[in-house]
Amino acid sequence: MNNLGYYNGKIGPIEEMSVPMNDRVCWFGDGVYDAGLCRNYRIFALDEHIDRLFNSAAMLDIRVPLPKDELRELLNSLVRKLDTGDLFVYYQVTRGTAMRSHDYEPTPGNLWVMIKPAAQGDFAGSIKLITVEDTRYFHCNIKTLNLLPNVMAAQKAKLAGCQEAVFYRPGGRVTECAHSNVHILKGGALWTAPADELILPGITRAHLIRSCAALGIPVHQEPFTLEELFAAEEILVTSSSKLVCFASELDGKPVGGRQPQLRERIRQAMLEEYLEATEV
Amino acid sequence: MNNLGYYNGKIGPIEEMSVPMNDRVCWFGDGVYDAGLCRNYRIFALDEHIDRLFNSAAMLDIRVPLPKDELRELLNSLVRKLDTGDLFVYYQVTRGTAMRSHDYEPTPGNLWVMIKPAAQGDFAGSIKLITVEDTRYFHCNIKTLNLLPNVMAAQKAKLAGCQEAVFYRPGGRVTECAHSNVHILKGGALWTAPADELILPGITRAHLIRSCAALGIPVHQEPFTLEELFAAEEILVTSSSKLVCFASELDGKPVGGRQPQLRERIRQAMLEEYLEATEV
Repeated sequence: MNNLGYYNGKIGPIEEMSVPMNDRVCWFGDGVYDAGLCRNYRIFALDEHIDRLFNSAAMLDIRVPLPKDELRELLNSLVRKLDTGDLFVYYQVTRGTAMRSHDYEPTPGNLWVMIKPAAQGDFAGSIKLITVEDTRYFHCNIKTLNLLPNVMAAQKAKLAGCQEAVFYRPGGRVTECAHSNVHILKGGALWTAPADELILPGITRAHLIRSCAALGIPVHQEPFTLEELFAAEEILVTSSSKLVCFASELDGKPVGGRQPQLRERIRQAMLEEYLEATEV
Repeated sequence: MNNLGYYNGKIGPIEEMSVPMNDRVCWFGDGVYDAGLCRNYRIFALDEHIDRLFNSAAMLDIRVPLPKDELRELLNSLVRKLDTGDLFVYYQVTRGTAMRSHDYEPTPGNLWVMIKPAAQGDFAGSIKLITVEDTRYFHCNIKTLNLLPNVMAAQKAKLAGCQEAVFYRPGGRVTECAHSNVHILKGGALWTAPADELILPGITRAHLIRSCAALGIPVHQEPFTLEELFAAEEILVTSSSKLVCFASELDGKPVGGRQPQLRERIRQAMLEEYLEATEV
């Protein structure tokens, strides 16, 4: 198959799949998700992603309809149905199917999977960013399907010819991007927002922190501001679909590029971890 | 029919309807909605609701796939298919169908309708409320399908044996309820939160304001606090599905009940407007 959709056991090409109108995602965006890269039919960091999915679900009283090991087996068997092993593997759990009512009866959730080919890069290019005020709710630590502010920010970035939007809260604290985490190098150290309610605890962010520690780069999990972002030696953007990117432009102004060796060491370390884990 | 689902021209019982997996609502909650009561096959305040739907859509660059008058005609024809004319009429527009990507190509949205029987009361009973911190985003003026905080608050209310949850922002400003607006009587006047980004501009709220003005009751569209809520002469809760209710209990404490005559005049005025507009 070229791509694959899965819904509660039904499988088909994504464009031909349908779901019940009364799935609660349709009325409330009532669900959680996770996703990551796959190479050579090996899903990268799968256990970490499954752990986070279960955490997201638990925080919202959503019941994942199967245990972790069965979900892992299912995803590992589904990727085998694809024509290529270089994939984006996405899965979500929605809060069951029922006539529309804000409140709910606890039932096992609905399991969705969506798999499609993903180009595998060396993560060496630079990206352009815009800044957008972070008007989101205070549950950004949960990976939910309430993504409208993220959609609007991502579209604004695209229309500006950029790849991502960096959110900042009133007062100027940088939180994260529309679908990535953002970090800076400053004084040769990594600064990354603390994993509180304002950011998603990125799996790739955790890998970045571990890589920096292994490379002897000091890590500060502390808030930083827009001003510090503009003045950063390097701006790093991490996500499970793109691993690590570096920014060369922010709101049309040149940024970063002042720690090319450190940047390259980080990129190499992240890339090597990914390649080794997905080797056959 | 006992109930009706509609999706881009397809019609059937809601429980049998399905929608494409790639409708953007499934990945992002990417859509807006509106809804209201119908009596005797006459949909109440339909033009006001359709205006608000178009406003919600425009604020998010979502394209409603038909003009206002055609949507009105469609809804008026769909209610005729139901066995009873006493209904809840719900409709939403989602941002088209596409492979999952935060950003989007502008296309006509998908039109959904959901109609089910609704009991018609005299709105004379009292309800019980809880308070919940308002951790939502700053787009509560747009009627979107990003409703997870509302779902969680409504469930909390249900588990507490209550009918609604009143949101308050840090600092104690009361905003609205999980699926209603909330107002107070204080010194014989109506106090209702201003229609800024923190509340939905309720259609029934607008009717309440007009009714109070017609009854000679002063109206203050100004913020009020949790403290003022607990001390209110009456607490009013308005929504398009329940019109107006009065609260007798808040977080387990007795509240309101100190302006029974004024309360009854408001209830009568709201009820009469509804009954007259939906008379055959």
